[in-house]
Amino acid sequence: MMAEVLSIGDELLIGQVINTNQAYIAEQLNSVGVSVARMMTVGDDQTMIIKSFEEAFARCDVVVVTGGLGPTHDDITRSAVCKFFQTDLVVNEEALERVREFFRRRGLAPRKINEDQALVPRSCTVIQNSIGTAPGYLFEQRGKYFIVMPGVPFEMKAMTKSFVVPFFTQRASGVVIQHRTLKTTGIGESFLAEQIGDVNEIIPPNSGMTLAFLPSPTGTRLRITALAKSIAEAESGIRNAEEKLRSKAGKYIYGAEEEEMEQVIGKLLAERRLTLAVAESCTGGLIADRITNVPGSSNYFERGIVSYSNESKVADLGVPLALIHHHGAVSREVAEAMAFGIRVKANADIGLSTTGIAGPTGGSAEKPVGLVWIGYSDRNGTLALRFNFGDDRRRVKERASQAALELVRRKLLKLDQ
Amino acid sequence: MMAEVLSIGDELLIGQVINTNQAYIAEQLNSVGVSVARMMTVGDDQTMIIKSFEEAFARCDVVVVTGGLGPTHDDITRSAVCKFFQTDLVVNEEALERVREFFRRRGLAPRKINEDQALVPRSCTVIQNSIGTAPGYLFEQRGKYFIVMPGVPFEMKAMTKSFVVPFFTQRASGVVIQHRTLKTTGIGESFLAEQIGDVNEIIPPNSGMTLAFLPSPTGTRLRITALAKSIAEAESGIRNAEEKLRSKAGKYIYGAEEEEMEQVIGKLLAERRLTLAVAESCTGGLIADRITNVPGSSNYFERGIVSYSNESKVADLGVPLALIHHHGAVSREVAEAMAFGIRVKANADIGLSTTGIAGPTGGSAEKPVGLVWIGYSDRNGTLALRFNFGDDRRRVKERASQAALELVRRKLLKLDQ
Repeated sequence: MMAEVLSIGDELLIGQVINTNQAYIAEQLNSVGVSVARMMTVGDDQTMIIKSFEEAFARCDVVVVTGGLGPTHDDITRSAVCKFFQTDLVVNEEALERVREFFRRRGLAPRKINEDQALVPRSCTVIQNSIGTAPGYLFEQRGKYFIVMPGVPFEMKAMTKSFVVPFFTQRASGVVIQHRTLKTTGIGESFLAEQIGDVNEIIPPNSGMTLAFLPSPTGTRLRITALAKSIAEAESGIRNAEEKLRSKAGKYIYGAEEEEMEQVIGKLLAERRLTLAVAESCTGGLIADRITNVPGSSNYFERGIVSYSNESKVADLGVPLALIHHHGAVSREVAEAMAFGIRVKANADIGLSTTGIAGPTGGSAEKPVGLVWIGYSDRNGTLALRFNFGDDRRRVKERASQAALELVRRKLLKLDQ
Repeated sequence: MMAEVLSIGDELLIGQVINTNQAYIAEQLNSVGVSVARMMTVGDDQTMIIKSFEEAFARCDVVVVTGGLGPTHDDITRSAVCKFFQTDLVVNEEALERVREFFRRRGLAPRKINEDQALVPRSCTVIQNSIGTAPGYLFEQRGKYFIVMPGVPFEMKAMTKSFVVPFFTQRASGVVIQHRTLKTTGIGESFLAEQIGDVNEIIPPNSGMTLAFLPSPTGTRLRITALAKSIAEAESGIRNAEEKLRSKAGKYIYGAEEEEMEQVIGKLLAERRLTLAVAESCTGGLIADRITNVPGSSNYFERGIVSYSNESKVADLGVPLALIHHHGAVSREVAEAMAFGIRVKANADIGLSTTGIAGPTGGSAEKPVGLVWIGYSDRNGTLALRFNFGDDRRRVKERASQAALELVRRKLLKLDQ
């Protein structure tokens, strides 16, 4: 089945609110074999709304509408729905009781505009709202489905989980869609494509499968999509493609789905009972921040030092001042001394360091903005690698933090650099 | 002028990526008097893409397309654009030079697929990409405009700012829309509303102006919107409303527009030639990360210590171990000792500290998850404040970092707590 997702609301058209509903609905529909062919957003304008209903319902099997069901004057979706389906409003007793209960629990009396939310289109199936006051609607017509839900994200999500997903799970007709995303870093999109080679060898042509490259500043995601007759068939196709991708570019793949590098590192450190300490200059605390986003990181993260001054590099990390004067703070030698220094100072198994020029100023011909040295130290030795991460300050910090954590991952897994 | 915003990409249709581009583009178009009538999202499918081009360009004066301009096989927007405008591809020398320069700066050689990004539709005006490798395109036809940009948010934003906004500023006719956003923190949305009182006293009824409350975990933004005949008229209405808002709730307003707390603090510290050092436990480096996002922060940020272990609190900050044992690491006493310790150790004017329970584990009845002590020390003395920031780990870190920086702001401006 093919679906269109339609959002209604002026707040979206003026860019005041980022639309997170469409992505959520698409993901949920996908999981039960309903593909989304198109997403649309229109404003609080009855003519536009009805026109978009007509277009979408003509093109697709499923239309999911959100927004404009609230109690105030600018919520006009319900009346547009009535016009579109040529029906009128009736009181839904269960919805009315829910509105009253909603206010009772808050020690308040509902106003007429609140009770009016229990008025629903006569010809629909009511989707009760377990969290808020506006019910949703389902219309079935010639094997097609038209669903209307409130735009408030948590109300919409509750209805989607409790009603929409089970509804389509029962009706899913054959096709199943599955996705698998592999996350790579340390290699540019085009070099990764070269490494992977002919896509037809990964994904058989006409197999209902696709491979997408999704780049971001900290790495490229590889997304395998399979359309199949059964979950088992889709999963086997994906497994196959994943194996081939891993055989071509495995060392760049650090995680899958929503997994973050700091979670991957955290798991590896915890398994090996190793501790980590970091000394950051140009990343300014971002590495420590990322590591400590992971629950339980206090078990392996010992401390972090953000050494923005030479004094701190000397006092907190034991970097010889002469080394800084001789090579400059942004140098292989200082990166190595920082990584070694924090490891010894913190009595940790691994020391990690960054020193670089985040910009926008401070660059020179020899040491341009974006130049970053990343240092690594463990009991087997100390080294530093040189990178250039471009000229946007925040981006330099993000890419440097990712490369530093990736260096730890490769060392722990004994992958080549 | 009316616009439609069109996003292209399977990653959007499967809900893998939340579309933030549409809101950004809408906001920017609005600011120069171009209203957005509709937003659409379609997948990487040439037929669908061309169909949506036809629909949108027929209905509106301006179409803004993003996505699908990358170098890999799944990027098909360029060929769809060529078909739609019945044109072919030519090399754009400036774009080619930019691609080569992009790789040169990274010490890499561009591949053919990278250089191919300099191939652009013959009949378009090229919008150069100052950050990435894919140029954008502008087509003008019968007084209508068709713009194509990459989907990578920061590249799209750079093109919008440098090209799209100035382009339509020249061509805008009639109504002007202006926004002004004031950022508050340290007060809940409903308390802020109470403080501000009757909105009609801030914004004259029927004036074409509106006031919106936009809450987020780290504070509530107040957004004034004015529709007017001229920029001068809109600006004067906004100035008036802003003055009234400031007289009612001024001390909670720390900045305006996209200004971040760390920029506000940075400016205050630089003006006063004061230095800051931070000792973080539960915020895990986020405060240092935020401070060092600001260019020039090395002038006032001396160092940061992320003390995740008691050993580090003792060794790096001089907190007496007995104090930790007696009061616990999450306590007023330890927060104060950390703030004082980092100030003295770093020889800085101001010491700032956090210690708390970010969760999800580690809480108790007496010290629940979300409890955070924030310490502050300057030559006039040392203090600590107690907060509870809820039970989501990342949110606790964000809210604690915001409250810590806000404490510095209030101290520097001598506002009451």
